Parts: sequence; structure tokens; C-alpha cells
Amino acid sequence: MEKVPVFQQERVDNLHICGLKLIQGENSFRYGVDAVLLSWMAGQKTRKGGKVADLGTGSGIIPILLAAQYQAMAYGLELVPQMADMAQRSVRLNGLEDRIRILEGDIKDLPREMEPNTFDVVVSNPPYMSPKEGLKNESLERAIARHEIHCNIQDVTAAAKRLLKTKGRFFLVHRPHRMVDVFCAMRNNGLEPKRLILVKPARGKAANMMLVEGLKEGNPGLIVEEDLYVYGEDGNYSDQILEIYQKKKGALL
Amino acid sequence: MEKVPVFQQERVDNLHICGLKLIQGENSFRYGVDAVLLSWMAGQKTRKGGKVADLGTGSGIIPILLAAQYQAMAYGLELVPQMADMAQRSVRLNGLEDRIRILEGDIKDLPREMEPNTFDVVVSNPPYMSPKEGLKNESLERAIARHEIHCNIQDVTAAAKRLLKTKGRFFLVHRPHRMVDVFCAMRNNGLEPKRLILVKPARGKAANMMLVEGLKEGNPGLIVEEDLYVYGEDGNYSDQILEIYQKKKGALL
Repeated sequence: MEKVPVFQQERVDNLHICGLKLIQGENSFRYGVDAVLLSWMAGQKTRKGGKVADLGTGSGIIPILLAAQYQAMAYGLELVPQMADMAQRSVRLNGLEDRIRILEGDIKDLPREMEPNTFDVVVSNPPYMSPKEGLKNESLERAIARHEIHCNIQDVTAAAKRLLKTKGRFFLVHRPHRMVDVFCAMRNNGLEPKRLILVKPARGKAANMMLVEGLKEGNPGLIVEEDLYVYGEDGNYSDQILEIYQKKKGALL
Repeated sequence: MEKVPVFQQERVDNLHICGLKLIQGENSFRYGVDAVLLSWMAGQKTRKGGKVADLGTGSGIIPILLAAQYQAMAYGLELVPQMADMAQRSVRLNGLEDRIRILEGDIKDLPREMEPNTFDVVVSNPPYMSPKEGLKNESLERAIARHEIHCNIQDVTAAAKRLLKTKGRFFLVHRPHRMVDVFCAMRNNGLEPKRLILVKPARGKAANMMLVEGLKEGNPGLIVEEDLYVYGEDGNYSDQILEIYQKKKGALL
């Protein structure tokens, strides 16, 4: 495998899933359990060779997981040139160039390489917070990843609608306090919410994350699935989370 | 207290809350834990003398609970004349005529006694199912209570919007699989969903009921509260449910 450059202010993290590695900026937005859970949920509906788009791919973790674990043909779209470059280097680092295309571009003006109505699955781990919410003195790159500065949930769902085939699936991770915004934006864009999983830090805690699956041109009717707990009563990762990671470990080994 | 007639095919049930009684039809739709939980949630935001409307009051259980436990001035609107008559007799049976008005009428053409923009709280335990869903060979009265035959969630929220003061509260109990319909109808009618409680039969079971609080002219932002479990691990009512009933018991005793 060729030598992939890693620059100053960057580090190479081991994903502990399928032996995958990821280049991340020391000071930029780094992946969390959100991205892992989102790709687990999307993976359930991703077939081998299926065409997947990740809107706002950041470090590229989601296309990397979906291509490595589910043999998807994945497109990762990223607005910030430095992030797109870093994601592209992570793709090379994992030898996944034949299954992943990282594109630099804007979800509000999709690049021509992403052909409308051809995708089986679209995923997004978008900025969670409104432009006003707790905006701190942070880098623009980090602010764009966390706040709806450049694009909002309406833009994300409109892009997903455009890319998906009829009956294609949209997967989103977001914060529960934005649930109404998410559901209304999805329905307004013809992506009917079909499944909801609330993610809680532990039993007895309030949900701080939600996973949603939508169906393009689907009929109304939502299934609220069992909650997912990140930590067990012993303070370690729950069995559910370990299972999600182990499944991933098992997939390529 | 005057003698209140109870007809054939009717029975008088003890609510086991505040010594209240309720006349119910042997063959008509009878109240469930839904109505008790909805009035508990609405009661948290009901002040003494506050003006409350129940849309589709049925047996009148909700105005009876809210008037007896929280000293609300309650209006119960019911389409089916026989149900309205039965509810009115239950009001008299509990000596609550000075706090409750049962009105026969249509939520799509609100009676003039219900003045727009004057209510502090509007509640509804509406038909849960779409017209097509599992419609069985049942009485029209029962079908109207269970299916969106006469009115749907859009009609209910439009009526609530009309009745509520600015910053008035709307409380709804519904099925989780209708969550998207509920949230979109509420937002479209200016009743922003602010709190969601999922009700589960027991731990590890999927939610089969949801309680929602909306705020007229409220800002977006939903709090997903802790789940409510109806049954505990021993198969009896959970502590949460017993607490809700006991609080009620304590209120008037």
C-alpha cells in the first residue's frame, strides 16, 4: 500500500472496527459513537454493491465503515476542502479507493458525479445545533460541523430526496430536541420517517441522540424501536454497543 | 345529591381516584389508562380556575378528573348525543356541575359557548387509527371514538389552536406510530411540541402510547422525557403509575 501523508495537527486513530484507521485533525470535529451507530443502522439496509451517499462526510468515517463492512459503493460529500482531502487520504490509508469516492462540494448544489435518483441509501450526521445555539469561539471548520451555519436539516433532507431512488432509504442521526424539525423536514421532502431509535447514555437517563430511518415515497407509519443504551450499569459499554462493534469486527476478519 | 338516571346497557364504575364515579356504556368505548395519564400530564399545567377544553370527551372522564383534582373550569365537547348525555349525567353524579360544561357539538364547527383564544389548556384523547386501519364490525359510536372517521389529527389540532390563548398548552395522547402525523399537524397549527413522554407496557417493551405537550406560538425544541412504564417487573402496576393514582387519591381526601 502506498504511503499516505499525515500532516502536522493530524493524527491516525485506530477505529477498533475491522482494523480500519482514520486520519483526524487534532483540533477539528472528531467522530463519535454517533457515526458508528448511524453506519450500523444504515448497514442493516445496505446491500453489497449498493450505492450510498454520505452528506457532510467530514473525516469520511461513514463511507469507510459502509464500504469496508457492507461492501457498499460509497460517495462522501464534504464542503471543507481540507476535510475532503483528509477523508481522501483515510480512504487510501485503508485501501478503499475502488469503493469510495470523496467529493468536495455543497449539498445545496450537488456535484454532477452524484446523479439524482440513483442512490439506494443516503446517510447524514449533520450539524445538530441551530446557528444560535451555544455557538462558541471555535474554528469555522468545527462550527460548520456542529451548527447549521452553512446548511440546515431542510437542506440535508432536500439533497437526500434528490439523490435517492424511489423507495430508497435515508438514515440520519440527530438530537432528540430537534425531532420535530427532523420529522417535518423529512416528510416535507417526501422521506417518510419509518423507524426511530432513541439512544440513551444509560438506563434511566434521557435520550441524547436519535437514529431515524426514512423511506422515499413511503407511507406514514413510524416504528419506535427499543432504546439503545451506550453504557451498561457497570459503567462500561453496554452489551448492545459491544455487539455492534463486534459485529463490525466479525465482518471482515 | 339528586338522583341521576343510569340506563340499561350502562354501568357505574368507580374510578378509584378521589372517590369519583363514571357512567359508561356496556358496549361503548370505555376509558383506559390513556385518559388517566393524559389528565395527569395536563394537570401539571392546570391552575385552579384555569379554563380547560377536552375535545371528544366521550364519557367525560377527563373534564371530571381535571375539575375534581385540579379545580379546573372544564368544557367537554362531544359529537355523539347519547355520549354527551351520559357524560352530563356523570358530571351530576359527582356533583361537578359548577365546574364542568358538557357540550354536544363538532370540533370542526365549535359551539359558540367555546370562545376562541380564551382557553388555558386544551386536551384530547382522539381516535388513534386512520379510517382504514383495522376497522371492524363495530357500532358507529365506538368506531368514531377509535378511528379517524369523523375527525382526524389535523381537525383536532386546528380546533385546539382556535381555542387556546397565546402560550396556552395542548395535551394529547396518541399512538407512537402516528408520531410524525401528530408533530406535523401540531406544528402546522402553531402548537409547537415541547414535551414527549413515551409510555411502555413494561421495561424492554416497545412504547404503545405517547403523551405530547404543545405550546401555542412556542419556539421549536422538544424535551423527550423519561419513559413511563405501566407495569413493573412483578406484573403489577409500576410505582410510577401507582404514584399517579395516589397523587390523585391524595388530592381530594
